[in-house]
Amino acid sequence: MKGVILEMAPQAHIVDITHQVSPQNVMQGAYVLAEAAPYFAPGTVHVAVIDPGVGTNRRALTARIGTQYYVAPDNGLLSFVLRQAKSQGETVEIIALDQAQYWLPQISRSFHGLDIFAPVGAHLVNGVPLEKLGSPVEDPVILEPSEPLRTDSGWLWEIISVDTFGNLRSNIKAHQLPQDQQNLHIKIEGENIHGITPTFGDAPPGTLIATIDSSDTLAISLVNGNAQERLRARVGGQIQVIFS
Amino acid sequence: MKGVILEMAPQAHIVDITHQVSPQNVMQGAYVLAEAAPYFAPGTVHVAVIDPGVGTNRRALTARIGTQYYVAPDNGLLSFVLRQAKSQGETVEIIALDQAQYWLPQISRSFHGLDIFAPVGAHLVNGVPLEKLGSPVEDPVILEPSEPLRTDSGWLWEIISVDTFGNLRSNIKAHQLPQDQQNLHIKIEGENIHGITPTFGDAPPGTLIATIDSSDTLAISLVNGNAQERLRARVGGQIQVIFS
Amino acid sequence: MKGVILEMAPQAHIVDITHQVSPQNVMQGAYVLAEAAPYFAPGTVHVAVIDPGVGTNRRALTARIGTQYYVAPDNGLLSFVLRQAKSQGETVEIIALDQAQYWLPQISRSFHGLDIFAPVGAHLVNGVPLEKLGSPVEDPVILEPSEPLRTDSGWLWEIISVDTFGNLRSNIKAHQLPQDQQNLHIKIEGENIHGITPTFGDAPPGTLIATIDSSDTLAISLVNGNAQERLRARVGGQIQVIFS
Repeated sequence: MKGVILEMAPQAHIVDITHQVSPQNVMQGAYVLAEAAPYFAPGTVHVAVIDPGVGTNRRALTARIGTQYYVAPDNGLLSFVLRQAKSQGETVEIIALDQAQYWLPQISRSFHGLDIFAPVGAHLVNGVPLEKLGSPVEDPVILEPSEPLRTDSGWLWEIISVDTFGNLRSNIKAHQLPQDQQNLHIKIEGENIHGITPTFGDAPPGTLIATIDSSDTLAISLVNGNAQERLRARVGGQIQVIFS
Repeated sequence: MKGVILEMAPQAHIVDITHQVSPQNVMQGAYVLAEAAPYFAPGTVHVAVIDPGVGTNRRALTARIGTQYYVAPDNGLLSFVLRQAKSQGETVEIIALDQAQYWLPQISRSFHGLDIFAPVGAHLVNGVPLEKLGSPVEDPVILEPSEPLRTDSGWLWEIISVDTFGNLRSNIKAHQLPQDQQNLHIKIEGENIHGITPTFGDAPPGTLIATIDSSDTLAISLVNGNAQERLRARVGGQIQVIFS
Repeated sequence: MKGVILEMAPQAHIVDITHQVSPQNVMQGAYVLAEAAPYFAPGTVHVAVIDPGVGTNRRALTARIGTQYYVAPDNGLLSFVLRQAKSQGETVEIIALDQAQYWLPQISRSFHGLDIFAPVGAHLVNGVPLEKLGSPVEDPVILEPSEPLRTDSGWLWEIISVDTFGNLRSNIKAHQLPQDQQNLHIKIEGENIHGITPTFGDAPPGTLIATIDSSDTLAISLVNGNAQERLRARVGGQIQVIFS
């Protein structure tokens, strides 16, 4: 993909956001994209390929959302950047790719990142107007974040991503927790965590802690270690938050 | 290596093709290089370092193959780009590196990527003619792809690479399979796969499938999962293709 | 971090040195940084984030060391680049970051790489003078490399890093070994290694060997394999060198 982009748009500056989304996990990719995108410059083109439906008749999209551009399969990967845009009143324009003259001549059945998404991204970098790349659509696939399950004593949430260091990210925002964070109990994979730890430096190495991370989200970490390995946790696993 | 290249050729745009070839697997590296190279622009310099013979008297090469440049140890790493060039009638010029003034002053015994290959690559980016870097050679080491073994009922092939997502690549090209792909049986690590699945979307999550990938090659994948982990498969492992 | 840097300094050329330091291992990061930095060009800005104390009152630093710039937490991550500078008589200027107008507006408690280190690095790329970013300090945290333990028969050292390929690096420099390298015995994780092997090509695949690597340091490797996996070794594990 990088070869294709640089051949067509040598002035492009390519950055990898991540190659570590768990296999075909569109929801996790949608979160990661929405978290990273705001830190990039206006005019950035984001090419996102998590594409379990490649080779089926799923549509392929490009979009201008606020000041940035996106290229992605139409499977919900843009759900959270679209939601952010809506909440901030940004303009959104979405196009279904159908102009094959902007693609590579040969299209495979198994990897459109190379054949379609990379060349379309390069054309956007080169200033090709969005409208030339296909036809407007109003109904992109939108994923809804999983809703927490209310229990007698608190809430059940999910692990929505795991980073390189084995930190487990939930979809619990800080404002969704009770004010008294010291009396929270968290259960995850049979282990108990008491309260929110303000920083890694506040607990000894080897301690399993809950923190509020840089995206204002509840995360589970192992101080100086890998929480995923310790807990054998997976994306989709339960996080139980108990209010006492 | 990137520091060396950017100090000598600050205008270089460096792209990592992969750091995930299995240890010292020159054959796998040769396949990966030949697959990726055609997608890069004319004038690209490919620096390839899989070098089990570093510190021995194996030669180091640079080559102009068609419109691109290569720097690599003389151990077969260029075998398939050379074969592609031959089949396409491209010009090939191969040089054994022997002009130490184009290297770093200190040469280690264990990593010539840093001392020799990176600075030679940077000199090529800067336009130093190939001929100044060493002496012409006509006999680069060439690896032959493993030949399939004919059995009573079909063929035995090999896994030649595994990608980041755990997809297993064979060296079986689509045209080498019988036309009736639905009556193929594939056996791998004790598991059976029936027929070729056109796309990932055609089988439910968790299914082990055989597909024809974007390089027209038979690959084994686990839908929404990691086939390598599921099968505990390795490069060099057998893939049995049974014609019924 | 890359989005923040490129938005503020689009001319920056970003290179990843490594993302594979073991979790929160400041000592290992300090070694890696000191090994890689000399190969980069004058004017390079190194942004180093291994930051177990994030959110506590640990200081954040920027430094000009010789011709290069560094941004890092004040936890010893610059120890070995500072030591190298001293041994080479290079000038050193160290500043504690306290000018928040050079940071992002929102500072998290858990990841200053994004909020503080990345924007400060971008300002340095843009030519902001070091002195504007904070106040001079004379007492950065300095880590001392672990000292070898003399035993009756030799020395006990430590594994200080593990690379992507599973090679185990010690902190034993070649000049610290006896001249007669063929009569050395090395014990590591219950296995014995005899003598120093000049190059990988001198031993058959699957052999555990000791080599002197490109940084003139004793390393333990598995020919064509992964020594870390074979030995289940970890940073901090013992390497026993026995002189016979």
